[in-house]
Amino acid sequence: MSRFIARRFASMDAYVPGEQPSDMEYIKLNTNEMPFPLPDFVANAVKNELDKLQLYPNPDGSRLINKLSEIYDVDPENVIIGNGSDELLAFTFLAFFEAGVVFPDITYGFYPVYAKLYDVPYREIPLADDLTINIKDYTGIGQNIVIANPNAPTGIVLGPEDIEILAKSNPDYIVAIDEAYIDFGGETAVQLTKKYDNLLVIHTYSKSRSMAGARLGFAIGSTPLIEDLNKMKYSFNPYNVNRLTQVLGEAALNNEAHFVQKRNEIIEVREYTHKKLEELGFTLTDSKANFLFCKHPDIGGFDLYSKLKDMGILIRQWNKPRIFDYVRITIGTREQMDALITAIGQIGLKDLRTKKEKKSYEKK
Amino acid sequence: MSRFIARRFASMDAYVPGEQPSDMEYIKLNTNEMPFPLPDFVANAVKNELDKLQLYPNPDGSRLINKLSEIYDVDPENVIIGNGSDELLAFTFLAFFEAGVVFPDITYGFYPVYAKLYDVPYREIPLADDLTINIKDYTGIGQNIVIANPNAPTGIVLGPEDIEILAKSNPDYIVAIDEAYIDFGGETAVQLTKKYDNLLVIHTYSKSRSMAGARLGFAIGSTPLIEDLNKMKYSFNPYNVNRLTQVLGEAALNNEAHFVQKRNEIIEVREYTHKKLEELGFTLTDSKANFLFCKHPDIGGFDLYSKLKDMGILIRQWNKPRIFDYVRITIGTREQMDALITAIGQIGLKDLRTKKEKKSYEKK
Repeated sequence: MSRFIARRFASMDAYVPGEQPSDMEYIKLNTNEMPFPLPDFVANAVKNELDKLQLYPNPDGSRLINKLSEIYDVDPENVIIGNGSDELLAFTFLAFFEAGVVFPDITYGFYPVYAKLYDVPYREIPLADDLTINIKDYTGIGQNIVIANPNAPTGIVLGPEDIEILAKSNPDYIVAIDEAYIDFGGETAVQLTKKYDNLLVIHTYSKSRSMAGARLGFAIGSTPLIEDLNKMKYSFNPYNVNRLTQVLGEAALNNEAHFVQKRNEIIEVREYTHKKLEELGFTLTDSKANFLFCKHPDIGGFDLYSKLKDMGILIRQWNKPRIFDYVRITIGTREQMDALITAIGQIGLKDLRTKKEKKSYEKK
Repeated sequence: MSRFIARRFASMDAYVPGEQPSDMEYIKLNTNEMPFPLPDFVANAVKNELDKLQLYPNPDGSRLINKLSEIYDVDPENVIIGNGSDELLAFTFLAFFEAGVVFPDITYGFYPVYAKLYDVPYREIPLADDLTINIKDYTGIGQNIVIANPNAPTGIVLGPEDIEILAKSNPDYIVAIDEAYIDFGGETAVQLTKKYDNLLVIHTYSKSRSMAGARLGFAIGSTPLIEDLNKMKYSFNPYNVNRLTQVLGEAALNNEAHFVQKRNEIIEVREYTHKKLEELGFTLTDSKANFLFCKHPDIGGFDLYSKLKDMGILIRQWNKPRIFDYVRITIGTREQMDALITAIGQIGLKDLRTKKEKKSYEKK
């Protein structure tokens, strides 16, 4: 840290992204990426754009925005694109949350970071004991709200009827719904943005659209909200989405059948893995995302993470009070998940449990 | 504007990028882009990266940063990359300028916008009548400073000895030098960052490296300054530079001879155009950038801009008190500049001037 940085940043901790070690090839199940490379019909889009890279991108991103507005059945004025949804979330905190914001105590770890970055007061509302969001905690709360739906890292989803209660009961506050994982089994609240001018829905291409490496996100909301976010964008970095990402993002929307097929593959493998992990003695949340959130009675989260890393498999774990027993496992291909299950088998949790059960039995 | 936006943004004007009209094909001399498409040795770099786009980019950008540190003869710890230099300038304002900043009254129009975005007090110091920066105005000023060098839109350059005076005489304040155009005839202050821990030098790939469409910038400074900027980055958007841009940025450094050749071509065409415009009666600053800044006694800046636009040539002009007579003309290819000169000839400024001169003569 330098002696020049603003004092309020001295104690601020930045966000820590999932590790990307380069010491060996891992089976990477730690950052919720898709396991499928881009199909040719998307990748080919860059070819015609490479000879225009000396020119600035279109700052409006209008071609991509027009296409997104068709897919999501809204007007182009209701869509903004960003350099990943992270950038749009940051703009949201900066533009709207000056007076404060609330979010769950267990959720996307970036929310408190944005709050500190922009000096936004925030309050964390504890999840229920079963790690669900109690919608009553936010009903008519009279504060700005940001909620990941499905929530991360629990994967538990709220229905649009719940989102509507939040928007309706807090008409003078922003309700921002971060739908990064919605395509894996939730129902989007996008259509509700036509009814509630305080509702903002944020999406990313990094998950269901397999483009984390291209950095693209978009947000949908009432025209004035999108105008405000554009004001942030044009006061920060008007050319925020580069040329190649704009054409890739557009091409990715050309074949929704492919998108649905890949998304369904992940859902299928998730349900398969869920079942296998249950058979191994894990407790799991009902995740509707492209990851599972689970714990095992015989091993702590950090120990499981460490043992799997030694075996060449990366998963994610947090040193946070309520969830340090848990791990989050990204859903990869069926083969990757079978490798995971085999590896967990080799750790021998079942034996551990059997011994414990025996002890518990002997005590009786 | 929505009723939810923070009050201080209500009166904020966003930055207005150069126009990108799509009604017809223009000769685009309005946003200081290079006229050369990427050579194959750069463009080809994306090919091997397209099948990894489902994975997040390396947030550290270490491969690219290592290469930049070699080229600029600094340590990797002294380099940070951004989504264009605009993003890094924004981080600089946010991290360091809380107490205020000064910059010239005529300079990159984004500086006051960043200041307003982050609630940074700022003061504009007037350029001298000949549009130069008077270094004495900033010597020992005891305030944070941001200066574009060469300045934009004047193109006038300061030497490293001037930059050293600023850094040395303001040891407790940041001196940020925006060297977007330095490669076209200035001398970079990068080596001075080893001597002055308060000096930050910001570069872009958008100008001399012909990659405005890829969005890439970098900053060089003392290790603590770069740590601070990384704290901003990791608290805003850790994956700020996408995969394709990282590999393109790396590949662009593989052939410095090509880079120097293209840069020299622009310098040569600039000097040619400068001479031709002088012959047409224009007054020009001594621009060391990839643009010329000039005015003509017989036509206002806006009128010249409008007439050229009607003729299919875009240049830039500002509705700002001291410079509304001026236009800024990007240096394109020799052919593009000849088209510009022909078009100006067709407007018939010489005739206008002759008439004026006659009038002025008749008055005597």
